[in-house]
Amino acid sequence: MASKEEIAAFIAAEFPQTKCMVEEVGNGGATVSHRIGHDELRPGGTVSGPVLMSIADVALYVAILGEVGMVAMAVTTSLTANFLRKPSAERSIVGVCKLIKVGRSLVVGEVYLYSQGCEDAVAHVVGTYSIPPRRG
Amino acid sequence: MASKEEIAAFIAAEFPQTKCMVEEVGNGGATVSHRIGHDELRPGGTVSGPVLMSIADVALYVAILGEVGMVAMAVTTSLTANFLRKPSAERSIVGVCKLIKVGRSLVVGEVYLYSQGCEDAVAHVVGTYSIPPRRG
Amino acid sequence: MASKEEIAAFIAAEFPQTKCMVEEVGNGGATVSHRIGHDELRPGGTVSGPVLMSIADVALYVAILGEVGMVAMAVTTSLTANFLRKPSAERSIVGVCKLIKVGRSLVVGEVYLYSQGCEDAVAHVVGTYSIPPRRG
Amino acid sequence: MASKEEIAAFIAAEFPQTKCMVEEVGNGGATVSHRIGHDELRPGGTVSGPVLMSIADVALYVAILGEVGMVAMAVTTSLTANFLRKPSAERSIVGVCKLIKVGRSLVVGEVYLYSQGCEDAVAHVVGTYSIPPRRG
Repeated sequence: MASKEEIAAFIAAEFPQTKCMVEEVGNGGATVSHRIGHDELRPGGTVSGPVLMSIADVALYVAILGEVGMVAMAVTTSLTANFLRKPSAERSIVGVCKLIKVGRSLVVGEVYLYSQGCEDAVAHVVGTYSIPPRRG
Repeated sequence: MASKEEIAAFIAAEFPQTKCMVEEVGNGGATVSHRIGHDELRPGGTVSGPVLMSIADVALYVAILGEVGMVAMAVTTSLTANFLRKPSAERSIVGVCKLIKVGRSLVVGEVYLYSQGCEDAVAHVVGTYSIPPRRG
Repeated sequence: MASKEEIAAFIAAEFPQTKCMVEEVGNGGATVSHRIGHDELRPGGTVSGPVLMSIADVALYVAILGEVGMVAMAVTTSLTANFLRKPSAERSIVGVCKLIKVGRSLVVGEVYLYSQGCEDAVAHVVGTYSIPPRRG
Repeated sequence: MASKEEIAAFIAAEFPQTKCMVEEVGNGGATVSHRIGHDELRPGGTVSGPVLMSIADVALYVAILGEVGMVAMAVTTSLTANFLRKPSAERSIVGVCKLIKVGRSLVVGEVYLYSQGCEDAVAHVVGTYSIPPRRG
């Protein structure tokens, strides 16, 4: 299986614009974090929904890499996000992903997103990735 | 009802980071477009999923403003995206929104996203906004 | 391509409990209808959400059969439903499906559900089916 | 707060067609079970998707009743289901719901559905209910 460092390097290459940091990988899940600055805020100090979804998307991808190895051609096929509470403008967003199913060609996972240090999730995302068939 | 120009100004203030242009508003719908450059691309020349969702989110918001007037406090409560085809790296993304329901407190709409000039959608998004109660 | 009658017979075999009638098939879409009786109602005279989703599921399946031919092993992989208005207790539900993408292994479609004769949809569903690989 | 018995009686009245049994309620969640017989099966011995969604819908409703008290007018506003594995034709389906957000007017929860005694979920559902405003 891939190490946290290998995955972080891979993510930096695959998602060159992302500011996500890989915090943990393994056991069918992953945790990432993302600093919040001016670029991520909407008026009123809310982190925008697409920023939250992009963090969830990376968390899901990191979890998949940790589970099935380096798969450059994995692509998101669907994402469903529910926005639950107003995120803090001063705290990083933390995304905690748990894979629900790792199939031959489809992987499904869910991600809870939190303002760092807060107990209640700001958003919940369920996503599906299509992965290329692997050799036995 | 708000004019296209008023809505464009409002969007520029509400989503200061967006590069979306308002193309059309009215009749319970809206069309927006978004130039694609290096910031929006993933390796392989694919427009990233979160960029597509952010364009859909703006299209939905523009359609709501056109329907119910300037509502600063409208917030996205859910988004479901299905990614259908690889978008072109050289064409703008066009988002065409149609509102499905405009209720007292919830608005539901769908958005088809296209690479400009192409017939088949690259993604489909259904989103829900919560809007503050309006006066009769 | 399969005829409406062939598809109706196939659906009756595949979904033996369904009361859905196939009204139209073709051009990447389908229309089905479903009588509403006591079994489908909740107190207050509302058609239950799962009944609406089951009609959408059949509409999607009918559209797929019309597009790719008789595929017994097609299975639903995801469904997202938004419930929009209270359906009539006295009218049939009509489901109008349009396929959004017909890929090699995944098909995505959307379904608008109406109380027969009413203009505004009571629900909107986006669904994904996984289909077995076809021979060239 | 409502007891398990009160909620079971309420569900029997609200969803008169349901075969769901209330197994547990409380702590922001609920567990229900549902016997599987001929009516719920599709050819090949698969429990149909809409049956799974109806069980998830009840589990969510039970959890809401346990959290906010008897709310007859709660209505489902959205459901997203991902179907993960083929359920057993011989085992009951168990739905385990956890509420993610209990807001003033919207409640969001997720439900894992299992074939009884099996570790891997057969489906995952995220649902939203609209509830009438409560008095302080």
